[in-house]
Parts: sequence; C-alpha cells; structure tokens
Amino acid sequence: MDEKYMKRAIELAKKGEGLVSPNPLVGAVIVKDGKVIGEGYHKYYGGNHAEIEAFNSAVDEVEGATMYVTLEPCFHQGKTPPCVNEIIKRKIKRIVIGIKDPNSLVAGQSIKLLEDEKIEVVVGVCSEEIKILNEEFIKYITTKEPFCILKSAMTLDGKIATKTGDSKWITNEKSREYVHKLRNRLSAIMVGVDTIIKDDPMLNTRLAGISIDPIKIIVDTKGRIPIESRVVNMDSDKGVIVVTTNLVDKEKEEELKNRGVNLIKTPLKDNRVDLKYLFKELGNKGIDSVLVEGGGTLNDSLLREDLIDKIIFFIGPKIIGGKESKSPVEGMGVSFMRDSIEVENIKVKSFHDDVMIEGYVRRHV
Amino acid sequence: MDEKYMKRAIELAKKGEGLVSPNPLVGAVIVKDGKVIGEGYHKYYGGNHAEIEAFNSAVDEVEGATMYVTLEPCFHQGKTPPCVNEIIKRKIKRIVIGIKDPNSLVAGQSIKLLEDEKIEVVVGVCSEEIKILNEEFIKYITTKEPFCILKSAMTLDGKIATKTGDSKWITNEKSREYVHKLRNRLSAIMVGVDTIIKDDPMLNTRLAGISIDPIKIIVDTKGRIPIESRVVNMDSDKGVIVVTTNLVDKEKEEELKNRGVNLIKTPLKDNRVDLKYLFKELGNKGIDSVLVEGGGTLNDSLLREDLIDKIIFFIGPKIIGGKESKSPVEGMGVSFMRDSIEVENIKVKSFHDDVMIEGYVRRHV
Repeated sequence: MDEKYMKRAIELAKKGEGLVSPNPLVGAVIVKDGKVIGEGYHKYYGGNHAEIEAFNSAVDEVEGATMYVTLEPCFHQGKTPPCVNEIIKRKIKRIVIGIKDPNSLVAGQSIKLLEDEKIEVVVGVCSEEIKILNEEFIKYITTKEPFCILKSAMTLDGKIATKTGDSKWITNEKSREYVHKLRNRLSAIMVGVDTIIKDDPMLNTRLAGISIDPIKIIVDTKGRIPIESRVVNMDSDKGVIVVTTNLVDKEKEEELKNRGVNLIKTPLKDNRVDLKYLFKELGNKGIDSVLVEGGGTLNDSLLREDLIDKIIFFIGPKIIGGKESKSPVEGMGVSFMRDSIEVENIKVKSFHDDVMIEGYVRRHV
Repeated sequence: MDEKYMKRAIELAKKGEGLVSPNPLVGAVIVKDGKVIGEGYHKYYGGNHAEIEAFNSAVDEVEGATMYVTLEPCFHQGKTPPCVNEIIKRKIKRIVIGIKDPNSLVAGQSIKLLEDEKIEVVVGVCSEEIKILNEEFIKYITTKEPFCILKSAMTLDGKIATKTGDSKWITNEKSREYVHKLRNRLSAIMVGVDTIIKDDPMLNTRLAGISIDPIKIIVDTKGRIPIESRVVNMDSDKGVIVVTTNLVDKEKEEELKNRGVNLIKTPLKDNRVDLKYLFKELGNKGIDSVLVEGGGTLNDSLLREDLIDKIIFFIGPKIIGGKESKSPVEGMGVSFMRDSIEVENIKVKSFHDDVMIEGYVRRHV
C-alpha cells in the first residue's frame, strides 16, 4: 500500500520536470482512512514545496493522516519555511519518505525531529526510482557540479555523420522527440563551436505544449562562433553562454556581449578550454545538469576528464560506412581494451526501429 | 490447436541446425485423437525426411491421423523417395503445412496431389516463424547463392578494435557463446586475410556438447595468408577455402594445396577478389549460408556489392574513443544520409549488459 501512494507521489513529482532546477523534483500525497485527501508537488523554483502544496489542496482535516513524500522534508529555512515544522504542526500521524536528504550535512535531521515528536516514520519506499528521478539534483547537491548526460545518435555502424558532415537524419522522429524531452528536463545543453559553424542549430526545446529551453553552452576556445548564428540571435527565455579562453579576440568578445551572450573564460588546458574548471563554474552558477550533444572531440575530452555521468546513445537502422565518417567519440582513444571506459546499468529502449541504449559511466573510486 | 502442434514441429526442426545444409530444417508431428503418436525431424543431410522419421516413430496406427509438417512434403525423388507418396499410402486424413516449397518450380505440386487424394490440406500455420527458421535455405533455393549474415561486435561508441587492433574483449561470454551458435548453424564463416594475420583465429565452433565447425573462407587477394596460421593447419572436419586471384604466387598456391587448403580463384575486380563471382561459386559448391566476421574493409565491400542479407551487431558497454580506432564498416562510405543502406525488421536482444541488434538489409527491387 505504501508503494502505491509513493508511486503516485513520484508521478506528481515528475510534473515539475524542467521547472524546479536546481531544486529536486518532489511529490507528496496525504492519505486518511484509505482515501487520498491531498496531493502536491514542487511546481517551480521558488514555489511552495510539495508538502505545503499537498496541505493546501487537502479536502479533509489532515490531523491523524499519513503523508507520503518522495524526499525527506526540509529542515532549514530556505526560500520557504521548513516543511518539517508544518508537518508537526498539522499533526500528521505517520510519514512515509522515499529517500533521505542527499545532502549529508542535513540528512536525517528532519527524520529525527519527526520521530522525537512521536510521528511514525518509514524511509526508503521506492528509493531506487526516486534516486534516478533526482539524479541531477543528487549529483549537484553532493558535488556542486552539474550532472552530465552525453547524448549521441549514430548509425548501426557507429557513425554520427557522413564524411561530408551530413547527419539528417540518423534517427527517427520518435527518438528526436525524446531528445527534446531531455532538453526540456535538463538545465543546459552543451555543444562544440564546430556544431554551430556546421549546422547552425537552434538548440531549443520543441515539444507540443509547454517547452522549456535549456541554457545553451557553446565550447569555443578561440571565439570562432559566427556572430550571426541563430543561437546568438535567438529569442529564448534562457541565455547563451560561450565558453572561451584568452585566445578570443577582444572585438568578438564585445560583439557577443552586446548581443546578450554570457562569456565564461577558462584557463587554457592543452590549448583548449579547461573543462574541469568550466564544470565548477557551471556549478557555481546554479546549473545542476548538462546535456552534451557534442561532436567526437568534445565528447572525448569530457569523457577523458571524467565529467560524464550518463550516456544516452540512439542507434538508427542505417549503415553509411566510411573510414572518414564521424564517430561519436574520437580524440586519441585508448590502445587496449583494458583501458576502456566502462558503462554500467545498461537499459535498452526501442523507438520503432531505433534503439536507445543508456547507462552510467563506471567510476573507479 | 494447429498452432500448438506446428510449434512442436518447429522445435523438432531446430534440432537439425547445422547438420542438414543445404537442405531445409523440417519437423513433423503426427496427431490422432488429440494425442501425439509420432514425431520426427530431418536429422542430417542425406538422412530421412521429417515425415518418414515421424512415421517410423509412430506408436499407433497412423491411418486417419493429422500430420503437421513445417514444409510442404517433397514431390520428387531425391536422395530419398518422395514423402508425398508415403503420406498418401499411409492414409493420413488431414495435413497441416507451415509453408509451401520455396522452390517456385515445384511449389504447390504436393499440395495439389494431396488434395486430389481428398486429404484435407491447411497451409500457412506459423509461416513467418518457419520462413525465418529456413531463411538460409529459402535464399539459397531461390537464388543459388548463400544467405549471408554480417556479424560484428562493437563498443558503445562504434569501434570494433582499438587503434592498435586490440578487441579482446568487446563483448561478454554470453554474446560470444551466441556467436558460436551462429557458427554452428551456418555452413561457412568468412574473414579477410588481415584477421588471420593479426589474430590467428581458429574460426571453429566451441560449444558445450556437439559443435559443428563451419567451412572457413579466407578472402586473400594476394595470397598473404601465413602458411603456419592455425586455420591452415587445424584438424577440422570442415575444410578451408582461400579465395584469391592471379596475384597469388605459384609457390604459395602449391604450399596451401599441399596442406589440404581449397583454393577459389576469382577474376580481379578493382584489384581485389570479385566477391559477386565468389558468391556464385560458393553457391555452386552447395554452400547455402555464410557468416561474415570481417573487418571494416571486407564488410564494406560485401555491403556495397549487395551480398549481405542480414546483420547481427553486438554492442558491448564500453567506450574506447579514437579517430583511428577500427569501425565495423569502413571503405569510402556514402556522402549523404539519403544514400545509406537501410536495415529493417530490427530486433533487439540483451545478453546481460551487451545489446544485440539484428535486422535485414532492405533490398530496393
């Protein structure tokens, strides 16, 4: 029974996708005498927490009820008052919590307080699912760096573009729609400047109904981004960040700033943008998640720097061949299989004849 | 009910895998008063047909019974007497046939004869499954050329080996075992000579229990195969064919022949073995199916020559990167996505964290 209501709370939490960052996705359900009497979720960053939303929606007296909440209620005063106090005040009798607060500095504090108040507390219902739902938040809160997904789309023979750079289309509409859902969910999208030069993409989210654009991050060591490119001149509610170095020329820098582009300058590392430095900076700016849709060189650099958490590869049922065709991960590559990067917890999904493979980069700690 | 017994006949047919080539896999079940009274399958090339095996195994009088057989019974005298006569003689009352004889010259002849004898005939039960089961046979009987599967094993980022040529191991044991099942099933295995030079593989079938080696075909335009390579000197019940051209030197040719190697010499095409000519030759030799485990160049040539019917790609959950790493299909490649080779009827299977994708090359006829 606990699982059933927690699943409903998870369903509610998902409604906040793309809107709450860098907060977690949280849902809450209040149940009394076997009936749901209140539901809520964290709707947007700065808005009410899920517990408060649930209280506000209650159609009956909540005293003596059970509350289901995906995440341990907050203990500290933040943008809103601490939820734990409200739960105690409203005389909730029993609380079922999906996962503890991932922030180890505060984890368990609310649980202890609730127990001190003789409220029955259960922790860990549907916890795996909730951890995956909040994987961006958990990475960000524990490391202060964004959770990073490397997305690629390749042919059956492992190519992301022909030798001439053509890649329209490797995957089908269903797959591409899924990518837009990812863009909707994650805070930022990252590409290399060559993608801008070659394809002039919009990098926005195009879904039926509400679409939330990601912040657009272009890695551009020398400031080669065309000033007339669409991404620089687009009307989007989210900004554009060009990541460059002191190799950019002053005039270009000014031009970009005049068009409202944000610049991050990193030290040079091997004559390129220092990606580790960049990810710390992105974390400092409150960016909790990044979707990389890079070419083989950027993808390789990010993987080598151990900045990728998750990979999502689409495979379209086509063969293009070619020694000079583009590959999803290029660079130097390893010499021996034993040095390869391992990916684990593989999941496979089909979109008609396209296959999507996702997994997590194994960390050797 | 018909489907249930036909599925049993299919199960029986499969027991002949690797043994009946270039005959089809056939199974038969005899049912009387709702009870199976006889079962049989075509066990090996030259052996009894399934129908006769089923009659021989019958534990009750077959007169008035129903026979289920995956393939239309043979009409002509072959290595064994025509089954259709035996079925009539034994007074079978009803016959359920999976698929018609794929040989258009004789298709339907037995069915007509059975109907003329007032036997009730049903055709087309589980036909899709039976067509896939006999896809090698059907291709071979209709074109006189072998059915050809291109098998490859690549990393998540589309590489079949590192830049140094290391590929041990991209896939796990379960996947590799499946490849041995393919080798067990298909008549021949084909590689390029570079694979022999680099890896010195045995190209045999290593399965617990009975293993049937495939005929080993090495494509070797200039006769570079090392005379001491394992494949040349192995003790196998199946032979080795080196496919070469007049670029091989006489002495090497003699040495190979002395070691029991068969040679096929093809005309030169673009300074290489003429693969189309080769496939006709293989057909003439009664080889109905070929498993290609080639490198990027051989794979590319076979695809360009439209000689591949089916692809089976394994994807291991590893990333190795590298612009110079090896790719499953190399060569020139196409310039535009619209010219790509399309693969259809995609099926996906998982072996732990490995993913297998199979499909059929779309023919534009």
